[in-house]
Amino acid sequence: MIEPSFSLRTPQGDERPRRVCDHCGFVAYDNPKIVVGAVVRHASRILLCRRAIAPRRGFWTIPAGYLELEETPEAGARREAREEANAAIRLERLLAVYSVPRISQVQLIYRAVLEHPAVSPGIESLEVRLFEPGEIPWDELAFPSVHWALRHEAEAEAGAPPVPFGNPDGQSGDRMPDGRALEREEM
Amino acid sequence: MIEPSFSLRTPQGDERPRRVCDHCGFVAYDNPKIVVGAVVRHASRILLCRRAIAPRRGFWTIPAGYLELEETPEAGARREAREEANAAIRLERLLAVYSVPRISQVQLIYRAVLEHPAVSPGIESLEVRLFEPGEIPWDELAFPSVHWALRHEAEAEAGAPPVPFGNPDGQSGDRMPDGRALEREEM
Repeated sequence: MIEPSFSLRTPQGDERPRRVCDHCGFVAYDNPKIVVGAVVRHASRILLCRRAIAPRRGFWTIPAGYLELEETPEAGARREAREEANAAIRLERLLAVYSVPRISQVQLIYRAVLEHPAVSPGIESLEVRLFEPGEIPWDELAFPSVHWALRHEAEAEAGAPPVPFGNPDGQSGDRMPDGRALEREEM
Repeated sequence: MIEPSFSLRTPQGDERPRRVCDHCGFVAYDNPKIVVGAVVRHASRILLCRRAIAPRRGFWTIPAGYLELEETPEAGARREAREEANAAIRLERLLAVYSVPRISQVQLIYRAVLEHPAVSPGIESLEVRLFEPGEIPWDELAFPSVHWALRHEAEAEAGAPPVPFGNPDGQSGDRMPDGRALEREEM
């Protein structure tokens, strides 16, 4: 085997630099990634998972992850809840579309309810738990968009019209709502 | 230079086969792609572009294309209108979220209006035109989702609530609404 070696070059007929293999000319087209996830309710409680993996190991998140090839966003959101919390969920509607352009992510977050109350940690979770709204560990959330989604879920529950939310004004997902910047490797 | 050569293999710690380089072990992670676009109105008329490129050259479409790295979906939708129709547009809201899982696409389609009435074909368009609703060339549309978006725009214009539409019931984007199947290379 030889060593991988790529250079940033603009392929002929293209307009942007891409990663091009120095050995064989293969062009690695990188595209923005789609994250799918759900805010999952069981009566008044909300399902959160404590992350067992980097980035942000030990912090709480909603079940979410990368959409796979040939998967619909809805199927992906259900799969992530199954993988991270052994949770069977029923999607209600699209809660929010967020974007975090610095890391080239678009997130589709759904409202959902648990089909069965039994949940348990999947391989990527240290712990899963149903939190009453007053118990949510706001200071130990993994990502800005988890904050946003939980706030928006509360607004939806309080009767906001069923129109998907977007990023809060002026927020691009680089900082937690307390102003602390996230390192790239934390996102 | 050597010849590119990839095999489908499941990398260690992964769960799905990926394209792995036979020479250097580079893993080409392919992800679903995000298409962003807009149904653009000018008074009662709708902006369509006749495609100058494959797939579906010569057919009509709304301005839309792949989201680029580090771009928000809204910025991407405006860029596509500029590139394909030299159109300056103002986005109003998210009209629809469609998915075409067979080709691993998620589409975010916005409602928009023209900021200036002057439009002209960009390099990927043979022709651009503003159509009155009764003039839309339904039999010469490029893709199923163009059909869907124009129907949904008409419903929105007729007063449907401002909740994004999804795929029409039972439709996965493999066929035009007249039932004709699209070849993969046509999508």
